[in-house]
Amino acid sequence: MNLSDLQRLVDQVAHGDIAPASAVERLSAALRAQPLEDLGFARVDHHRAARQGFPEVILGLGKTSEQIASIAEAIAARGHSLLVTRADRATFDVVAARVAGVVYHELARAITRPAGDIPPGRGTILVAAAGTSDLPVAEEAVVTAEVMGNTVDRLYDVGVAGLHRLLREQDRLASARVIVVVAGMEGALPSVVAGLVSVPVIAVPTSIGYGASFGGLAALLGMLNSCANGVSVVNIDNGFGAGCIASQINHL
Amino acid sequence: MNLSDLQRLVDQVAHGDIAPASAVERLSAALRAQPLEDLGFARVDHHRAARQGFPEVILGLGKTSEQIASIAEAIAARGHSLLVTRADRATFDVVAARVAGVVYHELARAITRPAGDIPPGRGTILVAAAGTSDLPVAEEAVVTAEVMGNTVDRLYDVGVAGLHRLLREQDRLASARVIVVVAGMEGALPSVVAGLVSVPVIAVPTSIGYGASFGGLAALLGMLNSCANGVSVVNIDNGFGAGCIASQINHL
Amino acid sequence: MNLSDLQRLVDQVAHGDIAPASAVERLSAALRAQPLEDLGFARVDHHRAARQGFPEVILGLGKTSEQIASIAEAIAARGHSLLVTRADRATFDVVAARVAGVVYHELARAITRPAGDIPPGRGTILVAAAGTSDLPVAEEAVVTAEVMGNTVDRLYDVGVAGLHRLLREQDRLASARVIVVVAGMEGALPSVVAGLVSVPVIAVPTSIGYGASFGGLAALLGMLNSCANGVSVVNIDNGFGAGCIASQINHL
Amino acid sequence: MNLSDLQRLVDQVAHGDIAPASAVERLSAALRAQPLEDLGFARVDHHRAARQGFPEVILGLGKTSEQIASIAEAIAARGHSLLVTRADRATFDVVAARVAGVVYHELARAITRPAGDIPPGRGTILVAAAGTSDLPVAEEAVVTAEVMGNTVDRLYDVGVAGLHRLLREQDRLASARVIVVVAGMEGALPSVVAGLVSVPVIAVPTSIGYGASFGGLAALLGMLNSCANGVSVVNIDNGFGAGCIASQINHL
Amino acid sequence: MNLSDLQRLVDQVAHGDIAPASAVERLSAALRAQPLEDLGFARVDHHRAARQGFPEVILGLGKTSEQIASIAEAIAARGHSLLVTRADRATFDVVAARVAGVVYHELARAITRPAGDIPPGRGTILVAAAGTSDLPVAEEAVVTAEVMGNTVDRLYDVGVAGLHRLLREQDRLASARVIVVVAGMEGALPSVVAGLVSVPVIAVPTSIGYGASFGGLAALLGMLNSCANGVSVVNIDNGFGAGCIASQINHL
Amino acid sequence: MNLSDLQRLVDQVAHGDIAPASAVERLSAALRAQPLEDLGFARVDHHRAARQGFPEVILGLGKTSEQIASIAEAIAARGHSLLVTRADRATFDVVAARVAGVVYHELARAITRPAGDIPPGRGTILVAAAGTSDLPVAEEAVVTAEVMGNTVDRLYDVGVAGLHRLLREQDRLASARVIVVVAGMEGALPSVVAGLVSVPVIAVPTSIGYGASFGGLAALLGMLNSCANGVSVVNIDNGFGAGCIASQINHL
Amino acid sequence: MNLSDLQRLVDQVAHGDIAPASAVERLSAALRAQPLEDLGFARVDHHRAARQGFPEVILGLGKTSEQIASIAEAIAARGHSLLVTRADRATFDVVAARVAGVVYHELARAITRPAGDIPPGRGTILVAAAGTSDLPVAEEAVVTAEVMGNTVDRLYDVGVAGLHRLLREQDRLASARVIVVVAGMEGALPSVVAGLVSVPVIAVPTSIGYGASFGGLAALLGMLNSCANGVSVVNIDNGFGAGCIASQINHL
Amino acid sequence: MNLSDLQRLVDQVAHGDIAPASAVERLSAALRAQPLEDLGFARVDHHRAARQGFPEVILGLGKTSEQIASIAEAIAARGHSLLVTRADRATFDVVAARVAGVVYHELARAITRPAGDIPPGRGTILVAAAGTSDLPVAEEAVVTAEVMGNTVDRLYDVGVAGLHRLLREQDRLASARVIVVVAGMEGALPSVVAGLVSVPVIAVPTSIGYGASFGGLAALLGMLNSCANGVSVVNIDNGFGAGCIASQINHL
Repeated sequence: MNLSDLQRLVDQVAHGDIAPASAVERLSAALRAQPLEDLGFARVDHHRAARQGFPEVILGLGKTSEQIASIAEAIAARGHSLLVTRADRATFDVVAARVAGVVYHELARAITRPAGDIPPGRGTILVAAAGTSDLPVAEEAVVTAEVMGNTVDRLYDVGVAGLHRLLREQDRLASARVIVVVAGMEGALPSVVAGLVSVPVIAVPTSIGYGASFGGLAALLGMLNSCANGVSVVNIDNGFGAGCIASQINHL
Repeated sequence: MNLSDLQRLVDQVAHGDIAPASAVERLSAALRAQPLEDLGFARVDHHRAARQGFPEVILGLGKTSEQIASIAEAIAARGHSLLVTRADRATFDVVAARVAGVVYHELARAITRPAGDIPPGRGTILVAAAGTSDLPVAEEAVVTAEVMGNTVDRLYDVGVAGLHRLLREQDRLASARVIVVVAGMEGALPSVVAGLVSVPVIAVPTSIGYGASFGGLAALLGMLNSCANGVSVVNIDNGFGAGCIASQINHL
Repeated sequence: MNLSDLQRLVDQVAHGDIAPASAVERLSAALRAQPLEDLGFARVDHHRAARQGFPEVILGLGKTSEQIASIAEAIAARGHSLLVTRADRATFDVVAARVAGVVYHELARAITRPAGDIPPGRGTILVAAAGTSDLPVAEEAVVTAEVMGNTVDRLYDVGVAGLHRLLREQDRLASARVIVVVAGMEGALPSVVAGLVSVPVIAVPTSIGYGASFGGLAALLGMLNSCANGVSVVNIDNGFGAGCIASQINHL
Repeated sequence: MNLSDLQRLVDQVAHGDIAPASAVERLSAALRAQPLEDLGFARVDHHRAARQGFPEVILGLGKTSEQIASIAEAIAARGHSLLVTRADRATFDVVAARVAGVVYHELARAITRPAGDIPPGRGTILVAAAGTSDLPVAEEAVVTAEVMGNTVDRLYDVGVAGLHRLLREQDRLASARVIVVVAGMEGALPSVVAGLVSVPVIAVPTSIGYGASFGGLAALLGMLNSCANGVSVVNIDNGFGAGCIASQINHL
Repeated sequence: MNLSDLQRLVDQVAHGDIAPASAVERLSAALRAQPLEDLGFARVDHHRAARQGFPEVILGLGKTSEQIASIAEAIAARGHSLLVTRADRATFDVVAARVAGVVYHELARAITRPAGDIPPGRGTILVAAAGTSDLPVAEEAVVTAEVMGNTVDRLYDVGVAGLHRLLREQDRLASARVIVVVAGMEGALPSVVAGLVSVPVIAVPTSIGYGASFGGLAALLGMLNSCANGVSVVNIDNGFGAGCIASQINHL
Repeated sequence: MNLSDLQRLVDQVAHGDIAPASAVERLSAALRAQPLEDLGFARVDHHRAARQGFPEVILGLGKTSEQIASIAEAIAARGHSLLVTRADRATFDVVAARVAGVVYHELARAITRPAGDIPPGRGTILVAAAGTSDLPVAEEAVVTAEVMGNTVDRLYDVGVAGLHRLLREQDRLASARVIVVVAGMEGALPSVVAGLVSVPVIAVPTSIGYGASFGGLAALLGMLNSCANGVSVVNIDNGFGAGCIASQINHL
Repeated sequence: MNLSDLQRLVDQVAHGDIAPASAVERLSAALRAQPLEDLGFARVDHHRAARQGFPEVILGLGKTSEQIASIAEAIAARGHSLLVTRADRATFDVVAARVAGVVYHELARAITRPAGDIPPGRGTILVAAAGTSDLPVAEEAVVTAEVMGNTVDRLYDVGVAGLHRLLREQDRLASARVIVVVAGMEGALPSVVAGLVSVPVIAVPTSIGYGASFGGLAALLGMLNSCANGVSVVNIDNGFGAGCIASQINHL
Repeated sequence: MNLSDLQRLVDQVAHGDIAPASAVERLSAALRAQPLEDLGFARVDHHRAARQGFPEVILGLGKTSEQIASIAEAIAARGHSLLVTRADRATFDVVAARVAGVVYHELARAITRPAGDIPPGRGTILVAAAGTSDLPVAEEAVVTAEVMGNTVDRLYDVGVAGLHRLLREQDRLASARVIVVVAGMEGALPSVVAGLVSVPVIAVPTSIGYGASFGGLAALLGMLNSCANGVSVVNIDNGFGAGCIASQINHL
């Protein structure tokens, strides 16, 4: 409630145009109330679409299928778009039994249900991946960006050990408005890509590798220390986060 | 050299409109040449402004004052904007003796010389800092964003231990096109800010802290694990990187 | 045996009021004996309730069901309250076959059997949790605090990415005598809570997260580096420890 | 502004007992205003004493002497108690030139100025330290607890390698309401102390040690993994934090 | 396309000896084309044998059996030698059903199919292993080196705790052109071997060990800090990498 | 072959008392041969008993049951004592089918077969363990020390959180010639024990714990940083190593 | 006070052979008193020589010269042997001004003053060091062992990169009763030495090295993971600890 | 002494061609003697040139100038080539005063004195460096390779953020027999280079960077996890090691 709303309301009380009880109710709501739905184990934030541009997203990790389905149901009941990440097929089956129209993305381990409530992004988001093993994370970014209203271009298996695979696709790099780069092992691809373009690069380290990759730590550190300008980094395997940020940028 | 350029050139050779020697020269250049200036210890990349939107930036760390001044001179000689980061005042004095019009930013430890060659950004970049000790990093982000043509709004000392300091500035958060958040210690501020806005948040962990902060590692890990959407992260104390990415986004 | 007890005993010997053999026995006991029951693989400390306010608690981790049941039996045989943590249902079945009146707490993975031997705490302990996935750890804290005689208030799913969920519950924060805050990922919730209250906050990092959460390390470091006053920390996933400390404080 | 305050104010407006403009002003203040003093580089939170029981404390680390003195002056101007931690003598001299009545604690590296505005704690806080080298951190805890209105008992050089030094002081342990235990190297003292008492133990790892102590990491991990109940931990060398929590507990 | 090729081609165009369309095609190819075969999820690099001396090798880790078989098929179809690492027997069965002549190496977990397209190495590669548990990694190095055309000598179970086992085999060490040394635990064998010879030693740490071996980190660090000259290191368990480098050296 | 042996042999050759061919054979053997038995995958070192006081011990980790049984057979065939560590019951069954008289120690996961070839130790080795969960590692130390000819005294469940359990057993501590102390979690027991005795203490950290125990790292670091004199440390969970060193000391 | 002492005393009281007050005094002392001298900042443990075989040793690290001198004076006043480690020459000068007969060991950074109160060890302690840079740590072990009454043999610069330097000294290895091995970098020397002897090896990692030596971590991990039997480890650079343990073993 | 030498010697004794005493002496020498010169603090290994292709190299780190000069003198006295690494100018002055003809390499911090005793390498060693700040390490590799008899080609400032700088130098990459690649920050250059060539690549991580570079750890991990074949790695900042290995390969 901004100042002019407040002024108008108080004037109405002073003029008897509105009953005090009613004014108290509205002011009390302005001070305290939020569009939260309390499921006991979770507080669904239906206001998030207005505040952040996309409804609450369900991170499947560590939640039971029943908990996920209940939250999904609450979101769908309001007609909001739905995205569940880190969900296996068994969870999908439980959700599908309670929410109509959901789709399962096998590689990305994601559940979606677009609801037509998201404005389209302005340009193309390019999602590049260094190797075949990085595809699950790349696909999580793709699915996220698509359900959030963006056009996505996939550029896979363009790791730095065979530079010509990347260099011959410079046109596609050049035509993207924002680029997500997914890589495991030494995580060098974002530096090389960022050196070729002028748009933001969101780097996603993956846990692909073995030995001194330490579960993606090597790739993460590599990306954080990138000598190229324009690289910011999200958590290891966080395809969702990268897709989400890319979408925010693409909606500016 | 794209396909149509190539076709035209070959046709000209076939038609005798251009001498073979001249065509060889142009094709050879297209295959090999780049606008690089070789200083011996460095190869200045004068083409970067065209490719990436801003001329090569000099990271002062690990370079001698003489090396920095030589590179700065080469950049300024082309009329390009200049930015040197991690430079102390002694380095500034050496640079100032060889390049006219440079300015030293004490807190940010940066040298700049705007050259009017950078197009302005579209909106405002907000740079928020959690504590007084984080200001040098925040100022590096500010100076970077400003020399790259952006309007910057500073919001300092709004750490999460006193939330009301941040909450009362929600209007300023809401009016930014992209937000840089600088924080040390537990690095929680980016999560809180990202929960309040719908624009991208670039998080910069700082090395401020002691003990189990491990030189900024705690803040870095906190930001990478942010439960809020829209947070991407740069290296510890990398104010320059954050300012640069924010500028890229603000120029879209 | 304090000095006056000692003086009295020696005087009794000197006066012949007590037989030397009997005095030797009592002094020998005072020098050496402790109310320990030796089960071979464990020494049950029945004196702990007197010394520390609650009988010995059984950490199930790394013990066989048979070992747990034997220790539980020894504790119950003295009429002491029982708490077993980190116990699965199979262990519960073994214990229940040998000790009457035990209860299993599924989510908290704990076994309890209150015995009415614990004095009640003075105020309310609030247990707050950032996300749905943190509930098992939060419930371990709740079960621990309750079996130790405290009234507990649960405040779940109030993570910092949606601050309004927490801010609207400030009354409940304000009415607690001590607060346990459970959070994974970046672990920022304790800092925000501690900034809003004047009572002690016990922070419990959880292993919830992935990638650079490194099994809860990110949350742990975040909490140790809290910029808010009044935050102390226990081990990752140590809901029991937090509940126990909160109870100690609440019994002061 | 709680509900009854709100109701009363609106009724006054409806009854013409208060001018609308005045009501708007008060409501606007309730919605937005906070007792913050903005120094440019810092926002001093004068409301903290009411909210958290002690005025804002200045962490000297990473601030200039001038910044510290300015904040100290603002706090003292309101008649609040003052505590500056991690301050060297040079900083003290700058502060003393601008704020009357400040005292420097050499070993603790702290500046204080009690203002009689803090209610006394209820019992005694015992601060135990394992070795002579741990005294600076222990003294920081002592100074903090004392300026916050508590009676403090020091118990120094009672490390676990010579248990009898501790065991002969069990009376002092028993008479404390809360205990702060400071130890470096393997950090085992808190476990031993907590096994002897029923009150909360706040453990402070110190960076004392060499080699595999890794700057206090060994002591920190040891304390987090304590097998004794009732131990919570603060950051390495954070004597202030421990003193502050002990004071909060002692004021319950 | 080097300068003389280019000159010749342009002259041919100028002289009408070649049609412009044909020249454009060849130049376009020289500028852009690469012998890449796009399988959708992978871009097979058939040019690698020419560029790097051996066809693309398939790292089985993180790929499905179907993906591996498809890439293997594409490589075999060109008549190239095949090597798949980190492949279990089930994957081998899938590959064998689609590619004739493949062999499975149980201990090395590798699939090979020599195609006679690799020139032989010049000398002998010695592969030494410290313990019986290190054999899978050592065998991966052996299989790699053999399929790449080298003669390999195996020297197993010669760990430093029984030096005489190694010292009696100094003749074999002396007759190798390059040596691969595989060791877990403290990883000391490469230092000892390198002190006895003048040829390059490629050290491979293995994840064999427990506790403070931290998955091979101890061996890795030991090898990186070798006090002997001539030791370079590859990733933990990377027998393939060591075999490959040894082959490169042996083909010089 | 020492100098006098050598002198005698050469004299015999000079005097014709021995055929040159025979002398060459003996000298060649002295220069090169060792009592090694080569099984292909392992070189059994039958000389170790003479050199190190106990025959080669088989570390089961990472070896197949067949490999273990073959090495065990070779050792037993010479009439040597046998010890296999980290062996499960299935491995024992394979060994028992080929070597008579072997015994399986369930808790210690060890196989032994004493052969009467080991001289007895001089005093008693005390093996102390902090908690019930540490018993498998403690038992590995016990079994190792016993098969190596020592008398062992077990002292279990004497962790530092209940000091009286340890203090009442000071007589047993005092009567040991060397002490092995096994502890997980914070690993404080060795410091306390070493402060009470004047004999060497071998500390064994265990991987018992969770969260910030990091697989025994906390206990390991604690023991390495012990403030008590006389504590040396072996690898995490290395009960065998501790038993072996204790035996070496007890045989001096 | 053991049982028979106790019995005798009580009988004396019963028989009137001793006054009750006197008995109370003696019993009270037995229950509580310890020969501790309290200097305020330190509690000197004069009983340690009886309990542990050598008087309290002063670790200079983190103590002021004045503190060190005071403790040294108290120890010398009782006629006990003195050892101060980690002391620079300035500290020595302060100590020498207050305690007669002290000696400074430059390389070892130690102060000693033998008092003839220590029984001699039984055999020889060999102290081996891998490289010239490891000598300060090795000398700390030597000085420690010597002041504790042992004969020490030095064997320096015998690192594993030149095995023959060690192998030609096998006689000296064989004649030692216990061996201290000091090494930095990869820390492989203890494994090689332990494989050649049957006596205990105390391994001391040093912080010598750079890069991935991580301040001695590489050497420490290498030693903990030794594949040779009989190696136990002390903290990085802890020459004192190794000398002390070697002395304990040599006094058995 | 090989078998035929041995046979001949014994035959000579049998035939009386050589005196027994003389044979004993020679055999004894063969069993024990090595060309070691003992300086007290160091054992100079004059045999190393024969065994490893280059005389002993002096690592200056942790040695005094006097120690370095003494060892250098001993090496030069035999007419061997000299290389001292990690030596500052003050050390050089001490060495120069005692050894004639030494040269100081400022950037590389190395002292050399070629003695013409090293055979020349066969091809060219290319040393590539990513940035200007990496030059000291690169120069250490260059100086090492040159003093060991190799021709070296320098290729500096070719980091991956500006790929064209590297790609235009492919001819120089192609003409090298072995390549040393020096890089800090994310350490991606070795992967890119190795993808372009078929010769071995020795990767040297440098400590250049800040924040999450953790002293070169990020670059080290990146290089160990290289997705390109043919990359082996040496310690952080170990330019000497890389130059030495490159020389070994180039001398094959």
